Amino acid sequence: MKAGALDLGEASKGLAPRGGVNKGVSILDFILRLIALIGTLGSAIAMGTTDETLPFFTQFIRFRAKYDDLPSFTFFVVANSIVSAYLALSLPLSIFHIVRSGARSSRIILIFFDTAMLALLTAGASAAAAIVYLAHKGNARANWISICQQFNSFCERISGSLIGSFGGILVFILIVILSAVAVSRR
Amino acid sequence: MKAGALDLGEASKGLAPRGGVNKGVSILDFILRLIALIGTLGSAIAMGTTDETLPFFTQFIRFRAKYDDLPSFTFFVVANSIVSAYLALSLPLSIFHIVRSGARSSRIILIFFDTAMLALLTAGASAAAAIVYLAHKGNARANWISICQQFNSFCERISGSLIGSFGGILVFILIVILSAVAVSRR
Repeated sequence: MKAGALDLGEASKGLAPRGGVNKGVSILDFILRLIALIGTLGSAIAMGTTDETLPFFTQFIRFRAKYDDLPSFTFFVVANSIVSAYLALSLPLSIFHIVRSGARSSRIILIFFDTAMLALLTAGASAAAAIVYLAHKGNARANWISICQQFNSFCERISGSLIGSFGGILVFILIVILSAVAVSRR
Repeated sequence: MKAGALDLGEASKGLAPRGGVNKGVSILDFILRLIALIGTLGSAIAMGTTDETLPFFTQFIRFRAKYDDLPSFTFFVVANSIVSAYLALSLPLSIFHIVRSGARSSRIILIFFDTAMLALLTAGASAAAAIVYLAHKGNARANWISICQQFNSFCERISGSLIGSFGGILVFILIVILSAVAVSRR
């Protein structure tokens, strides 16, 4: 496609900086993907290993809080794992875009999956955030008590694991926009 | 930009169908925005008017469930309202794209805001969904009881109001991809 445009006689002085900008955009895209990968993978691991057993127990009950007691947290771990696996798989394609900065259809395919993954990651992070808020504050009207008074380190852990995920969302928005810019200046 | 490309001598037979495809994409974009507007506005109204008062009451307490008893539902209403206001504001720009299908920078600006709004809408919808799930099922480990046994019509209403929002998310993903396609074939 790019070669075709060249043949059709676009001024070469106009094309050289464009290719340079696209290479820069592709490198930035690669770095952002790495950052998002670290964030989502960190979130998945931090949440997935959350497990607190209180030091006291009765004859029948041991007080224990694990992330999969709450379905939203399981969804959070699954969503973050899927997104980080996708990001790892998209890295080779990102390198391909650095080498061949004129590629267009592969970029559009990537925008499609990026947008879908952005939605998945946001869904996981915000469902977990809603439950974390409830764990901290409880809700008097619905008679849901705050569980953070008993499970202190559990609550710190689940709150902290949201950070990587929300950072990943911001980075993903940047990635989609960068791809749109790159696709527009072929 | 388009005029410049014309001057640089791209074959006119190649441009005519492209313009046609872009006009079709722009019209589809307009229709999708209308659908998403109806969905998100409907969700905001359905959730925002949810209010159930039970027919029995004691001397001290009247049993009443309103959407703003739960912060996640307030966020849901706010997010849906913002997104539907944005969609209404973006309709004129979408019409502008139908008329001038070669416009490029305005499309990229729109992709930016579309992506951000997609993230906002997903966050609102999935935070509300997490709480709706909790209202239906409760959580034995955290001692959170299901409130749907008492507030039946409240629960039906909050569950139903999620539909428009999740439909809006799917439509938004389509809109972003269509914009990316339109921007790539100027």
